[in-house]
Amino acid sequence: MKEFTYYAPTEIIFGCGKATAIGEVVRRYGETALLVTDDSKPMAAIAEKVMQLLRKSGISTVHFCGVKPNPTTNIVTEGARMAKNHGAQVVIGLGGGSSMDTAKAIAVEATHEGTAWDYNCHTQGPTEKTLPIIAIGTTAGTGSQVTQCSVITRTADKDKSAIWHRNIFPRVAIVDPELTATMPKSVTAQTGFDAFCHNFEAYLSVNTNPLVEVMALEAIRIINENLPKVLEDGSNMEARSQMAWADTLGGLTNSNAGVTLPHGLGMQVGGHCPQVTHGQALAAFYPAFTRYTYPAAIEKFATVGRILNSELCGLDNVAAAKQCCEEIDKFLQRIGLWIGYSELGVSMEDIREISDCGQVLGDYLNNPRVATIDEMYELLISCYQR
Amino acid sequence: MKEFTYYAPTEIIFGCGKATAIGEVVRRYGETALLVTDDSKPMAAIAEKVMQLLRKSGISTVHFCGVKPNPTTNIVTEGARMAKNHGAQVVIGLGGGSSMDTAKAIAVEATHEGTAWDYNCHTQGPTEKTLPIIAIGTTAGTGSQVTQCSVITRTADKDKSAIWHRNIFPRVAIVDPELTATMPKSVTAQTGFDAFCHNFEAYLSVNTNPLVEVMALEAIRIINENLPKVLEDGSNMEARSQMAWADTLGGLTNSNAGVTLPHGLGMQVGGHCPQVTHGQALAAFYPAFTRYTYPAAIEKFATVGRILNSELCGLDNVAAAKQCCEEIDKFLQRIGLWIGYSELGVSMEDIREISDCGQVLGDYLNNPRVATIDEMYELLISCYQR
Repeated sequence: MKEFTYYAPTEIIFGCGKATAIGEVVRRYGETALLVTDDSKPMAAIAEKVMQLLRKSGISTVHFCGVKPNPTTNIVTEGARMAKNHGAQVVIGLGGGSSMDTAKAIAVEATHEGTAWDYNCHTQGPTEKTLPIIAIGTTAGTGSQVTQCSVITRTADKDKSAIWHRNIFPRVAIVDPELTATMPKSVTAQTGFDAFCHNFEAYLSVNTNPLVEVMALEAIRIINENLPKVLEDGSNMEARSQMAWADTLGGLTNSNAGVTLPHGLGMQVGGHCPQVTHGQALAAFYPAFTRYTYPAAIEKFATVGRILNSELCGLDNVAAAKQCCEEIDKFLQRIGLWIGYSELGVSMEDIREISDCGQVLGDYLNNPRVATIDEMYELLISCYQR
Repeated sequence: MKEFTYYAPTEIIFGCGKATAIGEVVRRYGETALLVTDDSKPMAAIAEKVMQLLRKSGISTVHFCGVKPNPTTNIVTEGARMAKNHGAQVVIGLGGGSSMDTAKAIAVEATHEGTAWDYNCHTQGPTEKTLPIIAIGTTAGTGSQVTQCSVITRTADKDKSAIWHRNIFPRVAIVDPELTATMPKSVTAQTGFDAFCHNFEAYLSVNTNPLVEVMALEAIRIINENLPKVLEDGSNMEARSQMAWADTLGGLTNSNAGVTLPHGLGMQVGGHCPQVTHGQALAAFYPAFTRYTYPAAIEKFATVGRILNSELCGLDNVAAAKQCCEEIDKFLQRIGLWIGYSELGVSMEDIREISDCGQVLGDYLNNPRVATIDEMYELLISCYQR
């Protein structure tokens, strides 16, 4: 067996209605807190309930609702100022990936010299002084509730980077599927596919390990079975629960094995074309990615293919691996994400720029087949029209 | 989905030769350490190497080699005194379950009023003052390197209990399969079967959860395939590695879902008849346990049966579940643990006493079918002769 390290220290509290435990969970770590959310209307209602629960448990809390998609350093600084002024001992991230990532960065900036940016993945990273973080997801895709990752954009030059450090793992992730029930269909599909990608890419990653592999395959099975169900009926709480769990598995697998080529390029698509969501950027790229990669990972593609369609059990590995690409296409069609970059408003010029930045992040190196810049360009171009 | 909590904060560093990382691992937590081992001859050689590595990393270490099987409070107190005198900032448990459990108890007693016993599972448990614990296993069975459990016996009255608390999870588990290579065949079989039981019982436990289930099934698959190989050829390092990994999975599953009837009774057998090892006590009981329990967990027994023998895929669940009991019998025969209590020197009177204590520990309540004292007696009696 090859050597590996596995580390996932976040306590996972899973179950419908579990968000009501927030007061007792926060009390373990302090008596003052900052609640971090966006300022959307549905979130305001959830945040109000959470504030009430915290009040009941005697936690003095202030609410920072300034989170935006692709959170910037300016937003983090504003939140960190509130945390410091209030003497917050705990930071609670409530919402999608942006809110949880902002909470993590605030927990760093409130306790360190300079800004959170000074502790990103190109540095030594934050110390143990980082405030305890509690994460409560309201989408089912980012996995951020159990990862050591916080993606932030520097306001001044729109440079996108991440803090990636063991000191920003949330202490506790409350995974309450009921909170995901009001997600619009499009967000459900896009975040659900993101969860698929975290698991699929962590499984393929050259840095994978035996625990990641079993968790990722289980998550792929769950998503294949349940994402279409949730899209048919958003009130199907069993299927919502399964998706919330698969999303959490995606966080665990991604934080221990990393992601590969699609996520690396997807970050660049998001940076250059902010109108494209992360899930859309991935969905558009996957048909090219799978066909480029499968010859370098026949057994793994065959295994996933057989999960997506049990009829492939009758085929040999090479045939099943090839057919896996078709099965992923069909899955994208089923969940309404059979899209090309042109429909997403990405220009040919954007694609040139995106591929030129394709090696800025190291994720592409985790792929079983490592792409050159030229190959990235060709792969992206082949995804222009669907 | 049902609600659950999953918590496994120990960092796992896995791989052949990884024990050489001990110096840098300990340095994260302090500059002075206590090394805890038994005083066997093979261990003395390993401990000497570890002491050298620690010295090289500038860790001032003292070596407590007073661990015995079924460690007592007196032993813990002796070790804790050494830790305090030396000002140890870290406690390293190196060896089988007894050494790792003793290290955990020392980490508590060295930092708390009274003795480690005062913080057992009938109390509030130890605080965060507990010294950081690093665990390095040399058997492949106890899983203790990743659990919050330390079994200790009170010297005065031979009362056996456990500390079971989140503050005694090792910070880091170094799982180095090379260290297991010198285990005698009988120890390999008995500890390997213990690992099987941790996973099987955690899978069956009424407190199981979806993550435990996938990990446990993976471990059962690994053990079925690799334990016989290791017993054939103790130098088969790939199979040894697989067993070390399945053992670690058993720690993760057991610490999150508990064990059931056999482990509860097995502890009592060990308490009453110290000549019987833990693995032997389990092996003798399993044929009766499986037949008693399977009607209450048809689907789970069928699933395990099909892992043990893929031919059962052709049977319906009821037939496969019943056949699973036979498959476990055959597995015990293959690994040389087809034994009855009479051969182990357990008397009929012992069996009466053991069953009378069968409900002292709560594990039996986790079983899909809950046994009365009388049923326990009958089950044990039926395992008297093989």
